[in-house]
Amino acid sequence: MTLIEKTKKRLIRKKLVNRGDVLVVGVSGGADSVTLLYLLQALQHELGIQIHVAHFNHQLRRGANKDQVFVESLAKKFGLPFHTKSWKNPKSVEDLARKERFKFLTETAQKVNADAIVLAHHKDDLAETILMRILRGAGLQGLQGILSKKTLYGYTFIRPLLETSRFEIESFLKENNIPFRIDPTNKQPDFFRNKIRLKLLPLLEKEYSPNIKELLVNLGRNISTDYEYLDKQADAFFQNLVKNPSAKNSLQLDIKKLKKCPEAIERMVIRKAIAHLKGNTNRMALTHLDEISDLLDNRPVKSIVHLPGGIKVQKTSTSLIISK
Amino acid sequence: MTLIEKTKKRLIRKKLVNRGDVLVVGVSGGADSVTLLYLLQALQHELGIQIHVAHFNHQLRRGANKDQVFVESLAKKFGLPFHTKSWKNPKSVEDLARKERFKFLTETAQKVNADAIVLAHHKDDLAETILMRILRGAGLQGLQGILSKKTLYGYTFIRPLLETSRFEIESFLKENNIPFRIDPTNKQPDFFRNKIRLKLLPLLEKEYSPNIKELLVNLGRNISTDYEYLDKQADAFFQNLVKNPSAKNSLQLDIKKLKKCPEAIERMVIRKAIAHLKGNTNRMALTHLDEISDLLDNRPVKSIVHLPGGIKVQKTSTSLIISK
Repeated sequence: MTLIEKTKKRLIRKKLVNRGDVLVVGVSGGADSVTLLYLLQALQHELGIQIHVAHFNHQLRRGANKDQVFVESLAKKFGLPFHTKSWKNPKSVEDLARKERFKFLTETAQKVNADAIVLAHHKDDLAETILMRILRGAGLQGLQGILSKKTLYGYTFIRPLLETSRFEIESFLKENNIPFRIDPTNKQPDFFRNKIRLKLLPLLEKEYSPNIKELLVNLGRNISTDYEYLDKQADAFFQNLVKNPSAKNSLQLDIKKLKKCPEAIERMVIRKAIAHLKGNTNRMALTHLDEISDLLDNRPVKSIVHLPGGIKVQKTSTSLIISK
Repeated sequence: MTLIEKTKKRLIRKKLVNRGDVLVVGVSGGADSVTLLYLLQALQHELGIQIHVAHFNHQLRRGANKDQVFVESLAKKFGLPFHTKSWKNPKSVEDLARKERFKFLTETAQKVNADAIVLAHHKDDLAETILMRILRGAGLQGLQGILSKKTLYGYTFIRPLLETSRFEIESFLKENNIPFRIDPTNKQPDFFRNKIRLKLLPLLEKEYSPNIKELLVNLGRNISTDYEYLDKQADAFFQNLVKNPSAKNSLQLDIKKLKKCPEAIERMVIRKAIAHLKGNTNRMALTHLDEISDLLDNRPVKSIVHLPGGIKVQKTSTSLIISK
């Protein structure tokens, strides 16, 4: 099966796209996103999808403008609408650039009334991400890695290449004589992710586990299925024990019901409450959840636990009050 | 808090021992098990436990007999019953030795009518185990790592030092001037586990994640809570959809009910059925579960999937028949 056929099969089987969908495809000009664009445009009529090309010019390095010209001409060649934004920030940092790129993509999606934003993350990215999360500390949620379909702030993101290896992408480009741009910063091992890709993964492959990438990807798949189920279960408990579900600044959880939850559910419900208040559970570690358990089980009424991001958890005789 | 006090607290909080318990403590004579024995004997009257010392002499290396003499004199010093078995096998291999040691410990437990077998695994062992399982491929079940209490073939195993680091153990021995035996094979990086301990973990600590051990241990704790919940849920589904739960060679699962299970549960139910038939799910990989899913959803009646360990899965119009 060619990579085009495989991608088509995946898009359909995983229900990533529907006939009539408008898609915003993020294209940096590198090997991965160029492959993604070739594959999608080859399938556009068959799948009944409409493609917009979106290029974020972060101006972070020499050659950034050439990248833009390259992607623009590619879009022209395929007769596809092209969107770009040039980001000039004197204090350019990776993290900020990522946020700006996200903003650009969602704004473009809104402008063209898109059904989804398509990103070029592939199997090797997924393995790297999972390994990175293990090294930085993660629970079940983090170890899911990158999902092939995800809704964030009301936008749907799809990643059709998540089962395609970097090797397959390179072979596809070579076989079809497709030019692409090289991002020299990908080869600098001083970024944490690059160091994992360029040094740690090859070491692990050579000395410890020849198919480590495959194993990490499978671990992520395994865990995301389990997490999905746990998350659904916890949702039902959450609805049942939150006394004021529509409140925005302070949630009251029924202590009696909370104590009856299995431990795994108790922890997920607490995380859900925090996500409800501040949009995410970043920086929430196991020690924080342990402290809340201790508050619930052992500490006297009126005790308070402070969590990262300005979240406060207070115990009353009947409720656990979580507020920001 | 001293290590003795900490250990006492853990034994009680985690309900690892009960007053009146008879315990068989596995003592090799190395730092970990010698510490374990000192701690337990210091607590024996307070906790109301009765200790038997069990030493397995594997005869695998020089000094094995000296180890035995050392442990025997230690037991004598404490006035504790001593049990030993000398294992002579010309084709000595690590794996086989482990099995024989397990057999010796359970036989001793049976002989003295013990409530539990106590092992000296500590926090660093746990971190190593989890990393090893990641490198060899594991799902949720494997990533739990080592459990502080576990029942296997009807025997209860407890591990009171699982939250104690190797550093704490060494400090305890030094502070109290306690002699112990050194196992030179622990320093040979040619065993996979030793290589992880002596090379990979220090590298990860230095270059990627200074508190990797802590993170791995927390990952294991997180996952074991979640796994425990999933396992209980899956049990209920399993009871409900197995048509012949007391059969030993062939289980019939109701296809209609199985298809209605969430994916995470479906997979756990299949694993349970296999464990029911052959005692474990060793060598069952994600690809096998994928194949069974495909059998369930797409393949015609009478199709068969063969699994490792001689397990056969056949589809009929109403059942999935799993047999050995």
